[in-house]
Amino acid sequence: MSGQTVTACMLIIGNEILSGRTQDTNLAHLSKVLNELGVRMMEARVIPDIEETIITTLNECREKFDYVFTTGGIGPTHDDITAACIAKAFGRELIIHPDIAEVIQRREAPPEVMASRMLMARVPEGASLIDNPTGGPQGFQMSNVFVMAGVPMVMQAMASTLDSDRIKGYKPVRSRTIGAPLGESVVANALADIQAAHPDVDVGSYPYYKAEGYGTNLVIRGTDEAELDIIKSKLRDMIISFGGVPVESDEP
Amino acid sequence: MSGQTVTACMLIIGNEILSGRTQDTNLAHLSKVLNELGVRMMEARVIPDIEETIITTLNECREKFDYVFTTGGIGPTHDDITAACIAKAFGRELIIHPDIAEVIQRREAPPEVMASRMLMARVPEGASLIDNPTGGPQGFQMSNVFVMAGVPMVMQAMASTLDSDRIKGYKPVRSRTIGAPLGESVVANALADIQAAHPDVDVGSYPYYKAEGYGTNLVIRGTDEAELDIIKSKLRDMIISFGGVPVESDEP
Repeated sequence: MSGQTVTACMLIIGNEILSGRTQDTNLAHLSKVLNELGVRMMEARVIPDIEETIITTLNECREKFDYVFTTGGIGPTHDDITAACIAKAFGRELIIHPDIAEVIQRREAPPEVMASRMLMARVPEGASLIDNPTGGPQGFQMSNVFVMAGVPMVMQAMASTLDSDRIKGYKPVRSRTIGAPLGESVVANALADIQAAHPDVDVGSYPYYKAEGYGTNLVIRGTDEAELDIIKSKLRDMIISFGGVPVESDEP
Repeated sequence: MSGQTVTACMLIIGNEILSGRTQDTNLAHLSKVLNELGVRMMEARVIPDIEETIITTLNECREKFDYVFTTGGIGPTHDDITAACIAKAFGRELIIHPDIAEVIQRREAPPEVMASRMLMARVPEGASLIDNPTGGPQGFQMSNVFVMAGVPMVMQAMASTLDSDRIKGYKPVRSRTIGAPLGESVVANALADIQAAHPDVDVGSYPYYKAEGYGTNLVIRGTDEAELDIIKSKLRDMIISFGGVPVESDEP
């Protein structure tokens, strides 16, 4: 991979993901959004709703990666501790952001419900906001940390507002996929040679098992589209040389 | 949560998960399997196929948690570096395990294909094996680290062989779910009170948005089933007190 990689780490905060009750889908979505902005997802951590864990993990990851994105724990209930943890991690006061409060107050509610809802307006002092096109409370950005909702519909809406003014990436990674009706072991040596000849490209192989039979998807990923096309052509020839019929894939 | 928690961390190894190309489902599955063995999944990390990252992460996590489970990177191709990394992390030689070699050699293949396939027989010296009921090469255990396949079908088969002889857990966490046709903010204060009264139980709230309307699933998790039933009854009364009709859920 190139040396000019802009890196990201995702923190998926929530006991319900760790227990297996809820299947996370935010990682795959955010990885693709960030890639289009030229940012590479290098790590993701799923962590529980425990203050010390969130603070320690956040402080480690915001040093180690160019950007950190969190999902989960910004609702109005007792287990929604993300905003408070991020304020502590940065050593900032937790304040009520007037622009989030304004959004929350648009919908009327009895005073005690409004008080709970207003917890969603808390951000660390100095944070800027991440728009929420669903009309609910905004997320926020504190330095290189972006704090977003856990509910996929809301998270995706927030992610759709991220742009190159805010996130300074490099080049998106592009990919090509070609299917080989061959076992991984058959293509292993030839693949290793192709990888060695193209160190800037990531050559991956993923076995599949379908009703029609088994095989291996070959996936090449890199920032230079012309190089990817050359390698895909080499892979096609390689599959044929082993007696296979290459399966052209629409998958990117 | 109780003080007698036996903890696990999962390392999901693979560029294809980080890029968003492949959706991980192994975390949710393994969490449930481990829970039945009385082991709590406390963290999961998705990391790339980079030697230094795998070794550093593994060494950190095997100190910090009672058990570590890895998925991915144990195939026969150049990017399958998990076994070699684990040997390095433990400072052990990488050897060919005769029992895995025997399984691999059952299926005939040309010599160069067999040589690639035989890469899947490599384990750190001193490792014991994890059976693979699909008939393919086994996974392995090195101290408190369990190394399993990334393909879900194979990983699930391997996980099905884990038992209490091998994994020393405590009590499984059980849960109760009840739906409230109410916003999270409405129930927030009452939920916090219930959580405060039952510190050994984890009281969570998860908003949902369906065609019929929005609401909140209330989920209680703990090791004492009688206590869970008492709390569920309190939650039912609480929902009714706010004018809602509780939605009994079959979800655990």
